[in-house]
Amino acid sequence: MNTLEEIISENRKYLDRGEVASYIPELKKANKNALGLYITTLNGEEYFAGDYDTKFTIQSISKIITLALAIMDNGKDYVFSKVGMEPTTEAFNSIIDLELKNLNKPLNPMINAGAIATVSMIKGKDKNEVFNRILEFTKKLCGNENLKVDESVYTSENRTGNRNRALAYFMKSTGIIEKDVEEVLYAYFKQCSIEVTCKDLSRIATVFANEGVLPWNEERVIPKEIARIVKTIMATCGMYDASGEFAVNIGLPSKSGVGGGILAVAPGKMGIGIVGPSLDKKGNSIGGVEVLKDLSEKFDLNIF
Amino acid sequence: MNTLEEIISENRKYLDRGEVASYIPELKKANKNALGLYITTLNGEEYFAGDYDTKFTIQSISKIITLALAIMDNGKDYVFSKVGMEPTTEAFNSIIDLELKNLNKPLNPMINAGAIATVSMIKGKDKNEVFNRILEFTKKLCGNENLKVDESVYTSENRTGNRNRALAYFMKSTGIIEKDVEEVLYAYFKQCSIEVTCKDLSRIATVFANEGVLPWNEERVIPKEIARIVKTIMATCGMYDASGEFAVNIGLPSKSGVGGGILAVAPGKMGIGIVGPSLDKKGNSIGGVEVLKDLSEKFDLNIF
Amino acid sequence: MNTLEEIISENRKYLDRGEVASYIPELKKANKNALGLYITTLNGEEYFAGDYDTKFTIQSISKIITLALAIMDNGKDYVFSKVGMEPTTEAFNSIIDLELKNLNKPLNPMINAGAIATVSMIKGKDKNEVFNRILEFTKKLCGNENLKVDESVYTSENRTGNRNRALAYFMKSTGIIEKDVEEVLYAYFKQCSIEVTCKDLSRIATVFANEGVLPWNEERVIPKEIARIVKTIMATCGMYDASGEFAVNIGLPSKSGVGGGILAVAPGKMGIGIVGPSLDKKGNSIGGVEVLKDLSEKFDLNIF
Amino acid sequence: MNTLEEIISENRKYLDRGEVASYIPELKKANKNALGLYITTLNGEEYFAGDYDTKFTIQSISKIITLALAIMDNGKDYVFSKVGMEPTTEAFNSIIDLELKNLNKPLNPMINAGAIATVSMIKGKDKNEVFNRILEFTKKLCGNENLKVDESVYTSENRTGNRNRALAYFMKSTGIIEKDVEEVLYAYFKQCSIEVTCKDLSRIATVFANEGVLPWNEERVIPKEIARIVKTIMATCGMYDASGEFAVNIGLPSKSGVGGGILAVAPGKMGIGIVGPSLDKKGNSIGGVEVLKDLSEKFDLNIF
Repeated sequence: MNTLEEIISENRKYLDRGEVASYIPELKKANKNALGLYITTLNGEEYFAGDYDTKFTIQSISKIITLALAIMDNGKDYVFSKVGMEPTTEAFNSIIDLELKNLNKPLNPMINAGAIATVSMIKGKDKNEVFNRILEFTKKLCGNENLKVDESVYTSENRTGNRNRALAYFMKSTGIIEKDVEEVLYAYFKQCSIEVTCKDLSRIATVFANEGVLPWNEERVIPKEIARIVKTIMATCGMYDASGEFAVNIGLPSKSGVGGGILAVAPGKMGIGIVGPSLDKKGNSIGGVEVLKDLSEKFDLNIF
Repeated sequence: MNTLEEIISENRKYLDRGEVASYIPELKKANKNALGLYITTLNGEEYFAGDYDTKFTIQSISKIITLALAIMDNGKDYVFSKVGMEPTTEAFNSIIDLELKNLNKPLNPMINAGAIATVSMIKGKDKNEVFNRILEFTKKLCGNENLKVDESVYTSENRTGNRNRALAYFMKSTGIIEKDVEEVLYAYFKQCSIEVTCKDLSRIATVFANEGVLPWNEERVIPKEIARIVKTIMATCGMYDASGEFAVNIGLPSKSGVGGGILAVAPGKMGIGIVGPSLDKKGNSIGGVEVLKDLSEKFDLNIF
Repeated sequence: MNTLEEIISENRKYLDRGEVASYIPELKKANKNALGLYITTLNGEEYFAGDYDTKFTIQSISKIITLALAIMDNGKDYVFSKVGMEPTTEAFNSIIDLELKNLNKPLNPMINAGAIATVSMIKGKDKNEVFNRILEFTKKLCGNENLKVDESVYTSENRTGNRNRALAYFMKSTGIIEKDVEEVLYAYFKQCSIEVTCKDLSRIATVFANEGVLPWNEERVIPKEIARIVKTIMATCGMYDASGEFAVNIGLPSKSGVGGGILAVAPGKMGIGIVGPSLDKKGNSIGGVEVLKDLSEKFDLNIF
Repeated sequence: MNTLEEIISENRKYLDRGEVASYIPELKKANKNALGLYITTLNGEEYFAGDYDTKFTIQSISKIITLALAIMDNGKDYVFSKVGMEPTTEAFNSIIDLELKNLNKPLNPMINAGAIATVSMIKGKDKNEVFNRILEFTKKLCGNENLKVDESVYTSENRTGNRNRALAYFMKSTGIIEKDVEEVLYAYFKQCSIEVTCKDLSRIATVFANEGVLPWNEERVIPKEIARIVKTIMATCGMYDASGEFAVNIGLPSKSGVGGGILAVAPGKMGIGIVGPSLDKKGNSIGGVEVLKDLSEKFDLNIF
């Protein structure tokens, strides 16, 4: 058994201590016992182990894609006039900070409020064009023409997404969101419902590891400065309210989603995709975090 | 000039220090210089002074009417399983307490969140029947068959009511609200837009002053215990986050609205209706509060 | 068995569901099974039942005494420039509101922060004179020359009172407290440690019920307006963060302490003292609240 | 004029927009117009410009030194059982998070509460030995035997440090601090009052840039893992509630102090010390932040 398979095997023991996401019915169907990883290096080597072919919805990991796209559409200054850059200790779906902080600006683009504000800035003549641009950009980043939305997850998100509606109407009332709320939520719920595998995540990660250039054909798809901004925000805010601890222990710009995925960037080296739907209390893949800790130590990937 | 006219005259000087409500365009049209009062005693005498015939929308004063109706429909225990009884120092449209406090229950029925939850419990086969029951009950309480909704205010409330939508979707997400959110908001925005005069408010107040019995024909319309509950909640929570100071200085169960009205109950004695659209920073009629202070002192009405 | 004994007996069943205060070691020694009451009417009749002769420390009930004294020393305007009048939903030892609210002013004189600020305003050339004035005033209010401090409780309070020290130093840093912090805390911990019985509480309550005049000799000891202010603040803030519910269900200006006492005022009628050291989660005597509910209903004492 | 002098000159224009710290009288005496920098590379080259020889007190920059020392004394696990690793959006002297968050643990070692908790863990038989160890360690890190405390600043801190006393007593009440509060504050106020220059800061920074080894004599003084933890926490929490924005715009692990200093680490390359007592609203040197932005861009130092 190779190193990666060993890392997966040793960390399966954590899966029992977590739970799959239950806030929408469809996510409860995920396989709690799955744990897998996929690594793509900048020179094109690929490594994988465990349940790497498990499919899952991208969920909050999509927030780094829409952040890059929103900045490319509007410029850094405009985007950060609407959304902050500061980490928060509130939970990802918190509404408190919106009311307490100056300007009612969501604190950063990785919490739900900030991500909804971010997607509201992506250009498009209607909600379909907005989402289509997001989907096409995501396909480009992972070089996978077959990506599609898991419609049953989307339907479930849309039907039960009242907390996100509350966040969006709050921001509509304060002028942060200018478009129609339901139009914005359509794109947001759709982007969260894109179905991916670890391989897709690892390839998206290589683009950031490569400063915005697709490693497989040298095409620049994200300006270098924007790629760096996204990596920085991943490093400080990407793992919900466990971001600080993750930085100390692992030190890789990463983003997790409640579907069980984690995307991690090792700058100049590789992109890592993880799946493990059993989540800890903060909403991060409980086995995935442990796997990343082992990878970071074994291959000396910590950026700090 | 009689005593009441003197009280009005002396307190006009405060009007300049306030502002008419501006959060919806229609309310900005109110006359900042208006100040008037109407008193109806339990034995049917009527006194009035100043701009007592000014028309205005009832706004938050309607919350005491729907609280009585919701308890009559559902019983005290059910209503207070969904809405608390505690005063709060947050502003009337705050969303913070919903997230911070146990059970995500709105703190009391006088803040917007609590009032929206309250109206969601009023029975009716659809939103029209719910609102019709509210309107008919209000007509009964003031013995005025001609009450009607100011449709331009309603339209304005509905179009710009995104903060209230945020509160309602938040409570939908936590299970406090069980009905469709837009159905609930229809009734809520309509009830706030009922057009009244001081005379209407003073007559509604006499019903509470008379423990739930219409003084003009001895018909019981609210059970005695429910009338007392409503009075108590007015005394502790009726004047937004200035309720404590109002109790100390004036000591009358009262409810204010951003349309400039205040309804005050002198138990066993009289009902008082005030109009004065110039508001202080907490959202209470700036002249109206001063007028009530003079009335309370001059006629020894303080209940404490 | 008479009515009062029946009320005590029927409510002993609640005692098991509560706990005696444990935040300082000395209070843990209280008798969890004790429940007693003492009623003194304005014309001098006395009624009692249950464990009415249990001794306990007055704790937070002393806050109404020092509030009256501070206003008599400084005037209403000065006192309320340092302490607010608004009820709060935070717990009695909360520090949050101090930081979040305007001016860093404690919200009301019944929470610990507000009570500490209040005692800092009582005049005296040193801490001993300040506390002596409080003790003499308390003796006067209950006509009991033998009142004294339980020194072991005082020592325990002083040694473990770091949360109160935090509140006091916070207010020192914002200028609310002007004196030396330890001098202020000396008087505060001493006033909380005065040992009383239900009879003492019931007699203090009659003074407020009688608008500031000792009923037994017609001596005015508190100006009428100040007596009313204290009663009002008891009605809105006296039972910690259960004050709103208590007003709805019982409707008597009251103040509780973690020693197990409750003092309740029936204006124009009587003063009630309760003892019952088993406390509910908000810090109120669990049996005592039930006893007051029965008394309020049976003798129609609700002021609303 | 060389590049560094140009950078200093161009950024002097920001100094007018800030203010020197005023919360203690002694700090108000700082020279608002001073702006200087000192760079020490890992191979011993030194560069400087502007008012690099200005003396100032180290203030919060000392927090990184005591964090390293506390971990060396107690191990990582113990220290982080008492203090968290999460960035916060509250101001550096906030007490809110202590009450709202689980376990009443300060969120991170860079805010005042966390730094006070950290210094309480440094070993020593009494307060003098604790502080002496801190001072000797600081001298070692900058290779400057002449470092000493500015006693007038210390006296001023101690006399007016009531907000820090409030934080410390709060943590004493929750068990985070086990020692006597005044003993802990002695060491804390002393460590903040150590007088330094930019050169001292730049040399301390090189030790972290060199993974814990003094570059000038190859002596290891901090274990590699501990040096990395400190750098990580500087990167996510070092610039108060502007840490996220600083990471995005500049990307250097840094720590600021209200004396006007900033210490910045360019891993593997150099240590940077800045002085500029004119502060922005978050408490960071207003000119210093701009100087670092220029250095980061010009020499491509951003770690993300």
